[in-house]
Amino acid sequence: MRKESGLIRWICWIVVVAALFFLGFVIGWFAKPSHPNTPDDSDSSTYLREFLNEMQPDKIREHLRKFTQLPHLAGTEQDLKYAEQIKREWQEFGLDSVEMVPYDVLLSYPNETQPNYISIVDENGTEILNTSLAEPLPEGYEDIPNIVPPYSSFSAKGQPEGDLVYVNYGRTEDFFQLEREMGINVTGKIVIVRYGKIFRGNKVKNAILAGAKGIIMFSDPADYWATGVQPYPDGWNLPGGGAQRGNVLNLNGAGDPLTPGYPAKEYTYRFKLEDAVGLPKIPVHPIGFHDAIQLLKNMGGQIPPNNWKGALNISYRIGPGFSDDFKSQKVRMNIFTNNKVARIYNVIGRIRGALEPDRYVILGGHRDAWVFGGIDPMSGAAVVHETVRSAGKLLSKGWRPRRTIIFASWDAEEFGLQGSTEWAEENAKLLQERAVAYINADSAIEGMYTLRVDCTPSLHTLVYDITKQLASPEKGEEGVSLYESWHKRDNWTNDRDAPRISKLGSGSDFEAYFIRLGITAGRARYTKNTKTERYSSYPVYHSVYETFEIVDKFYDPTFKRLRVVAQVRGALIFHLADSQVLPLNLNEYANSLSKYAQSIARLAQNHPEEMMTYKVSFDSLFSAVENFTIAARGFHERLQSLDRADSLQVRVVNDQLMYLERAFIDPLGLPGRPFYRHVIFAPSSHNKYAGESFPGIYDALFDIKNSADPEKSWDEVKRQISIAAFTVHAAAMTLIPPA
Amino acid sequence: MRKESGLIRWICWIVVVAALFFLGFVIGWFAKPSHPNTPDDSDSSTYLREFLNEMQPDKIREHLRKFTQLPHLAGTEQDLKYAEQIKREWQEFGLDSVEMVPYDVLLSYPNETQPNYISIVDENGTEILNTSLAEPLPEGYEDIPNIVPPYSSFSAKGQPEGDLVYVNYGRTEDFFQLEREMGINVTGKIVIVRYGKIFRGNKVKNAILAGAKGIIMFSDPADYWATGVQPYPDGWNLPGGGAQRGNVLNLNGAGDPLTPGYPAKEYTYRFKLEDAVGLPKIPVHPIGFHDAIQLLKNMGGQIPPNNWKGALNISYRIGPGFSDDFKSQKVRMNIFTNNKVARIYNVIGRIRGALEPDRYVILGGHRDAWVFGGIDPMSGAAVVHETVRSAGKLLSKGWRPRRTIIFASWDAEEFGLQGSTEWAEENAKLLQERAVAYINADSAIEGMYTLRVDCTPSLHTLVYDITKQLASPEKGEEGVSLYESWHKRDNWTNDRDAPRISKLGSGSDFEAYFIRLGITAGRARYTKNTKTERYSSYPVYHSVYETFEIVDKFYDPTFKRLRVVAQVRGALIFHLADSQVLPLNLNEYANSLSKYAQSIARLAQNHPEEMMTYKVSFDSLFSAVENFTIAARGFHERLQSLDRADSLQVRVVNDQLMYLERAFIDPLGLPGRPFYRHVIFAPSSHNKYAGESFPGIYDALFDIKNSADPEKSWDEVKRQISIAAFTVHAAAMTLIPPA
Repeated sequence: MRKESGLIRWICWIVVVAALFFLGFVIGWFAKPSHPNTPDDSDSSTYLREFLNEMQPDKIREHLRKFTQLPHLAGTEQDLKYAEQIKREWQEFGLDSVEMVPYDVLLSYPNETQPNYISIVDENGTEILNTSLAEPLPEGYEDIPNIVPPYSSFSAKGQPEGDLVYVNYGRTEDFFQLEREMGINVTGKIVIVRYGKIFRGNKVKNAILAGAKGIIMFSDPADYWATGVQPYPDGWNLPGGGAQRGNVLNLNGAGDPLTPGYPAKEYTYRFKLEDAVGLPKIPVHPIGFHDAIQLLKNMGGQIPPNNWKGALNISYRIGPGFSDDFKSQKVRMNIFTNNKVARIYNVIGRIRGALEPDRYVILGGHRDAWVFGGIDPMSGAAVVHETVRSAGKLLSKGWRPRRTIIFASWDAEEFGLQGSTEWAEENAKLLQERAVAYINADSAIEGMYTLRVDCTPSLHTLVYDITKQLASPEKGEEGVSLYESWHKRDNWTNDRDAPRISKLGSGSDFEAYFIRLGITAGRARYTKNTKTERYSSYPVYHSVYETFEIVDKFYDPTFKRLRVVAQVRGALIFHLADSQVLPLNLNEYANSLSKYAQSIARLAQNHPEEMMTYKVSFDSLFSAVENFTIAARGFHERLQSLDRADSLQVRVVNDQLMYLERAFIDPLGLPGRPFYRHVIFAPSSHNKYAGESFPGIYDALFDIKNSADPEKSWDEVKRQISIAAFTVHAAAMTLIPPA
Repeated sequence: MRKESGLIRWICWIVVVAALFFLGFVIGWFAKPSHPNTPDDSDSSTYLREFLNEMQPDKIREHLRKFTQLPHLAGTEQDLKYAEQIKREWQEFGLDSVEMVPYDVLLSYPNETQPNYISIVDENGTEILNTSLAEPLPEGYEDIPNIVPPYSSFSAKGQPEGDLVYVNYGRTEDFFQLEREMGINVTGKIVIVRYGKIFRGNKVKNAILAGAKGIIMFSDPADYWATGVQPYPDGWNLPGGGAQRGNVLNLNGAGDPLTPGYPAKEYTYRFKLEDAVGLPKIPVHPIGFHDAIQLLKNMGGQIPPNNWKGALNISYRIGPGFSDDFKSQKVRMNIFTNNKVARIYNVIGRIRGALEPDRYVILGGHRDAWVFGGIDPMSGAAVVHETVRSAGKLLSKGWRPRRTIIFASWDAEEFGLQGSTEWAEENAKLLQERAVAYINADSAIEGMYTLRVDCTPSLHTLVYDITKQLASPEKGEEGVSLYESWHKRDNWTNDRDAPRISKLGSGSDFEAYFIRLGITAGRARYTKNTKTERYSSYPVYHSVYETFEIVDKFYDPTFKRLRVVAQVRGALIFHLADSQVLPLNLNEYANSLSKYAQSIARLAQNHPEEMMTYKVSFDSLFSAVENFTIAARGFHERLQSLDRADSLQVRVVNDQLMYLERAFIDPLGLPGRPFYRHVIFAPSSHNKYAGESFPGIYDALFDIKNSADPEKSWDEVKRQISIAAFTVHAAAMTLIPPA
């Protein structure tokens, strides 16, 4: 009995011991996380809140003040000094690393001893009127050295003399109208066009194609003057003595004109100047409207159509040449601008990703400015600076993003996006394989009305989500979200009840990242009311009047607009760098593709007979878009059941999301434009600023009008449709389960 | 006291319980794997052993027998039937999926009612001698239909008539010698060249550039006859009536000539025939040496240099035209070959990867043959078939590789690598992002001597490791490893005591994968003794005598050589698909780059004065190679301390390994060859078969000889050095820690 009970006792003991051990084992097993790389998303959103709250209007004001004291044209000492300062401060803010990355690229400056100007000369060749050599300096800036006078960088040198012809905006259609309807040939003439509507380099290209031997561009008040606003310094309009600087290249994404496709390093082969990409072969010069009046007021020839007339009190006659009384007078351009290889500096800062250091989210914007860069670009650079400061604060609190964040201060944007393009060229392999997204940070403000976002469709949802979490910066809108404020001011269309988001065009540093490399990209800034404010860009654009004060007094006295732009840009990079699953919505891409396909097909339907004759059909494109739509839907459905604890599975779908934009790249490039490779988005060949969807098809259709061989032209349309259809099909294939 | 002891007892109890629980917890915690995705490598090696042991000579013999019964030229019904059979059998073997992938591409066939031949015509234009219309059929094959007679596919049509000029092998240097030393101009002549040394398409291109109006190619016994061997069927030499078929395109990697850059799908835009890529503009025809004797024996003109003489009992006089007695006789080509768009079919089979389904390891080889394809390609296709069978067996035992394996049976390789290239074009995005490696499986045997491997340097180590684990297939070498057997027969150099591994050239289906897309690639086959057997390729290459019997009787009666080739190819894909860390050695790449850089610099040093005059330096390239060497070494050192339990970390380094080869791709392509984009390896422009290192520099140096403007030519050398240096630098950057 005793023995038995002892046995039972022992059995009980063993059972208890085993049970306890087993319980411990089971709890230990389950207590251990399966995948130590699974982050806690709630942490992330707390940090996001802190990140955004840390950004302060005063600090942005301070940054802007600091970096607009002196002119800092690319390639100058002051631009380097600001680069060094930015590097130092980013290090102090706490980035893991900051480096200066130099390149030696082709820039262009006025000759210091021989100023550029335009004259009216009499029959003896005597200059009886000269345009101004510089803009009147704003108060407080009279003693500042190194203010470059208005010029067209990369203009050819020369002193062409001849009759003027006025060609409106210098668009392709303006030259068509001039040649076909007005019967005017500009061969051997000097054309004068007003700024606006399209990129100035396209105007120059059109003038060259038409045979002009020089081109003058002026800012017409119709295009650079807001009603009811005083000229600077009493308001933010362009004074009559102000003029728009700017490069007149046709690079089509090549970067440094001497090293297309390769970074401009010490060992890099450089083209001879005559083989450089995109340099105009004729002199080009910009003037303000005071000077323009002098050149235009005595013009003879036809009276222009109404839409060729600007807001000056002159007739806008077409020419060629002056009216009877002034017939013997000619116009002479005196252009001595020099091309020069100079050293430029990007500043590159990094926060190393904790789990996926090989995934890059980039926030980049330029630093170089024509003069002070009060708006362009320092309003954007100040915002980046504040973003870096705030990110540094977060790092010091123990935060580290899942992916690597790269901050860039680009140089020589104004000379053809050179700093950003050279860096993209040097790092193309890394970026192609590792870049998640590129957020652009040029001027953060160009108006006082509402938010403006241009981005790839997969970012639409994220942009909306972010703006719903942010507060409107507008007075009287306390408690109103940025989304509501924006939505109220700029609803998309009748079909889509949401704030308008536009396509990316070009003309800023995202170009190489988006259009050449196919990296998910977007930009955000504060803008004007495009329905009522018809001027191009903003009035003082690229003039000496882009000062700190113009922002401080007029554009954003509380600096809350810039703050909200900082928050939008910052939240974009935060989400893209820290979300476990990339916050990209491919259904939005599908919707956009469908809209674009319909729209390009409608454009072709302007030629119903030729469509029949040449058997042009968009069916293959529609079918590809349908295919993409199904694939995107399936992808997002499967995403619902993703095992987020399995880090390899998560990486696989993130790779699909990341590479989707890459799938739209055609390695062969668009026709004649090897560095514009995005089949869905690129500027048309006729205006670098405007983003066209299906640009290959668009350009082919555009050329129909001008074609001597319609069969061949329609054949090109068909070829482009086929390339678009293939590309969309191929993109769809990247979204199905990978094996 | 009692109370106290009770308390102590309770405390003891609690301690024991807690200790037990804690012990259980700790054991449970550690018993649970940290990363469930960590595979057990010892399992993998057991499966590898089974995989290789399952491959059987008899089975390979059976597959070869089965797929060489009937001619199966690309685009014919029989080729489709074999495709369907392969699909069916791969499904039966147990692959996860098998699909047929069709394309509609440009092929070329003789006109069925108007045979191609060459005549000697007398002064009246009467044909007094015609070359044979077909090869004498081998015994047992007399009644087989659809044997295509020897022809040059994609030849232009036409009946040019004129004097013959003999130009040796038709190489660039042969034409130079002809024009410069012999003073003979072939404009308006018909050239006759012997097969061998370079790709036939390059001969045709050279003839066209020289102005010839037709080109005849013949197989000289000096190049297609092994000493002491009987002609087929008594031995494996080429009978005098046999001739080499083959395409004469200069595609430079374009695939289908009508759809360069895009897959030839139903919606794809097709070029007009006159715009097709790479079609020769003159008639081309191949003949055997019996016919060649008739054409050549009465040739007049100069006596050739000794190295222009073949092994026929004729003088090999150069011409132009016949000797005095036959002066009035001319040669007429009668070529009626038609181009035709036809449907081709790839068969694509898949084994889905268990952990990384989005990583692809490809084993691909073609199926289409000129006639039976006993050697080319079915010796290779039989090996693939056996590999699939063995992999299927493994799957049924529960194995599943870490990564996805893709098996491909390509079509229309003989017409310019079309099946493989179109599929690469259709899947370019997926492959660029996901392909780990491509192993090529063309003919598995071309001699009876030893192993031959051509591969990218990062595969060297894996190839050696694999061959050390395999047994030699040679009689009398029981117990000897394949490595030892190979090493003994083909030691690399005096510097490197290891079996020789060569560079990849082109001329088989790896081209689009390696040279266009930059995917790690290699090929392996059994070969002849290149030191003693001087004939090109193997004697019966592309003739009707490539039968099952020639392999069964002569090349590999035991089928052990084919088995070992199957094992090498199979082990390559197994390791690449199943190793946790990719078995690629980048130090080997660094060594090779260093060797190549020295060798190309030596080549340039043939022109020491011009190097001075034009300031040509290879320093930037050497410095880039040094940089790469350091980066590769650092990478492999860090690999030692990789936490293999962390699946994200493993993926990050695997991505670096996978994308390294991609880093050598220049998106702009080599000069004039947009689809040859590999900066380190590509065929020279002068011979598609031979892989050159730094082909851009090589071609630029080659052109120096022929240049009218040395400054410009040396400038191009400098440009190419700069591109090479940049590319190697950029590749090095991919190997440093990613942030």
